[in-house]
Amino acid sequence: MPETVKPDEKAEEGAPAPPQHRNIVLTGFGGLKMLKVQRRASNAPGPGEVSIRVKACGLNFVDLMVRQGVLDSPPKTPLVMGFECAGEVGDHVMAFTDYGAWGEVVVAPASLVFKMPSNMSYAEGAALPMNYLTAQLCRTVEDVTLYGTASAHKHEVVKANLTSVIDRSADYLHEIRKLSPEGVDIVLDCMCGEDTNKGISLLKPMGKYVLYGSSNIVTGETKSFFSFAKSWWQVDKVSPIKLYDENKTISGLQLRHLAFQQGQTAYIRSAMNRLLQLYTQGKIKPVVDSTWAFEDTQQSTDEAAPQEATAENKPEAEENKDASAVNGQ
Amino acid sequence: MPETVKPDEKAEEGAPAPPQHRNIVLTGFGGLKMLKVQRRASNAPGPGEVSIRVKACGLNFVDLMVRQGVLDSPPKTPLVMGFECAGEVGDHVMAFTDYGAWGEVVVAPASLVFKMPSNMSYAEGAALPMNYLTAQLCRTVEDVTLYGTASAHKHEVVKANLTSVIDRSADYLHEIRKLSPEGVDIVLDCMCGEDTNKGISLLKPMGKYVLYGSSNIVTGETKSFFSFAKSWWQVDKVSPIKLYDENKTISGLQLRHLAFQQGQTAYIRSAMNRLLQLYTQGKIKPVVDSTWAFEDTQQSTDEAAPQEATAENKPEAEENKDASAVNGQ
Repeated sequence: MPETVKPDEKAEEGAPAPPQHRNIVLTGFGGLKMLKVQRRASNAPGPGEVSIRVKACGLNFVDLMVRQGVLDSPPKTPLVMGFECAGEVGDHVMAFTDYGAWGEVVVAPASLVFKMPSNMSYAEGAALPMNYLTAQLCRTVEDVTLYGTASAHKHEVVKANLTSVIDRSADYLHEIRKLSPEGVDIVLDCMCGEDTNKGISLLKPMGKYVLYGSSNIVTGETKSFFSFAKSWWQVDKVSPIKLYDENKTISGLQLRHLAFQQGQTAYIRSAMNRLLQLYTQGKIKPVVDSTWAFEDTQQSTDEAAPQEATAENKPEAEENKDASAVNGQ
Repeated sequence: MPETVKPDEKAEEGAPAPPQHRNIVLTGFGGLKMLKVQRRASNAPGPGEVSIRVKACGLNFVDLMVRQGVLDSPPKTPLVMGFECAGEVGDHVMAFTDYGAWGEVVVAPASLVFKMPSNMSYAEGAALPMNYLTAQLCRTVEDVTLYGTASAHKHEVVKANLTSVIDRSADYLHEIRKLSPEGVDIVLDCMCGEDTNKGISLLKPMGKYVLYGSSNIVTGETKSFFSFAKSWWQVDKVSPIKLYDENKTISGLQLRHLAFQQGQTAYIRSAMNRLLQLYTQGKIKPVVDSTWAFEDTQQSTDEAAPQEATAENKPEAEENKDASAVNGQ
């Protein structure tokens, strides 16, 4: 459940005031001004929980959806925002939380707290959990040719990690069919909507289409992001007979549901262990777009707004703030 | 393409007659009398083909559908029936063919001919390709609890391989939910139709529903098998958003399409190699319902008619005919 935040009234009483910490609180849905930095006494960790002294927090596309109140099941405000953070509990750790990650001290479920490798920075640790876990659970494979579609302004950022980048506004089906006439093995789609059957049509036999994300199901154009309709019934349905006839697979992956509604932490820990192995071997390195001080969070969510969340497009960042929001776009 | 059969006219001419072999020919769709044993000179193998001296042929549910002309893309009659056989080419081999397998001499694509382990009987070899390849490509896993649904008269036959057998006519959703309240990892469905979304609802998070078969998509009741409507639009479609929200996967597997329309022999060979490994290790053993002489094939397809094809329910057979149709039901 979302953590709600109340002004700390006990601080006014006679007893020595417990230490207070800053949090980024969403006071209501909508514009940037709804985000406030507020001080409060932190909760003590309960059974199976860990209290983390946070050094960096991750900011994802889903946070913008939270801010705008456009999630399918919006939380109640006021609430401390954020789903991932990195910090100290003695060890350096990163954590995946069900809201509440944007604070100087964060209480997280121990099952979703992971020790960071010694060479991982806090900014990297805060950037890793949501995007890389999602990618890992989609089971991306090694030695692949990667085609990406992205808005034109993002091509510079993402092209280093892709074999080809195709403009989303172009006829990408046609472009990809030219590049891979026999079809592709896997389609990873965080946009959904009218493109599902298009994506399936690109697969070769035994290929797999994965609809993933962190709640960012949008059915309209990305450019009209803040006005999209959450019309589930508008989404293309898929005929099982078509999958049967074409030998294809479609999967859905909703990481937050998996962790917090469905309690499948075993899957998540096993995927994270694999990610940490890949990181230690130097095979993956989270790329961070920018880092922001707590006080600049309004601006950081604004900068992130016109972009889509993908696991691959995080440009490198300097990590120079004590507790900072990492713009993971 | 199906192989068509013509009476061999050259046999009447002056030159020494080429050797002739018996085949089981479907002369037209419909009843049992459409099946005839006919003699003809066999084709010589072309490039990439192998000529097999056949000892046993497999009979599957899909053969009944061929006989009745109820496949979605029915072949042209007359044709030699059959999709799998076992025999000799020096080595003992089994083969998967696009029709034409029910003959004393069968020409098969070399890519779909597999050397049999030394302890495998011809009847086993003829029973293995379609059903076990399908099961293997569905990626059934080890150490699982298996629930099966089957018509009551088949329970004796299948129960040795299953943890629980549930009557198809019972409320099997309710029964399975009682046995596995947390859901199941995989649902293998060769019946399809109105049950797809029911099957998906039984899955636990990260579970997988596989719609498989060898063309035996039926949308009505099995009992009215010969009158089922091939109404694709009547089949339950699946919402990608539902899969996303519930972290579930749906796959289709149509082995004959994979092999003969989509040319994915690499997948098939790799699955077969795994099967042969499992056979050699004694972990699988094809169970054969009954064997029939060529001349009794009409009766064998009649016996098979009221049953469904599954990979598990082939009772052991004696193998005592030179070239026999194995009733793989």
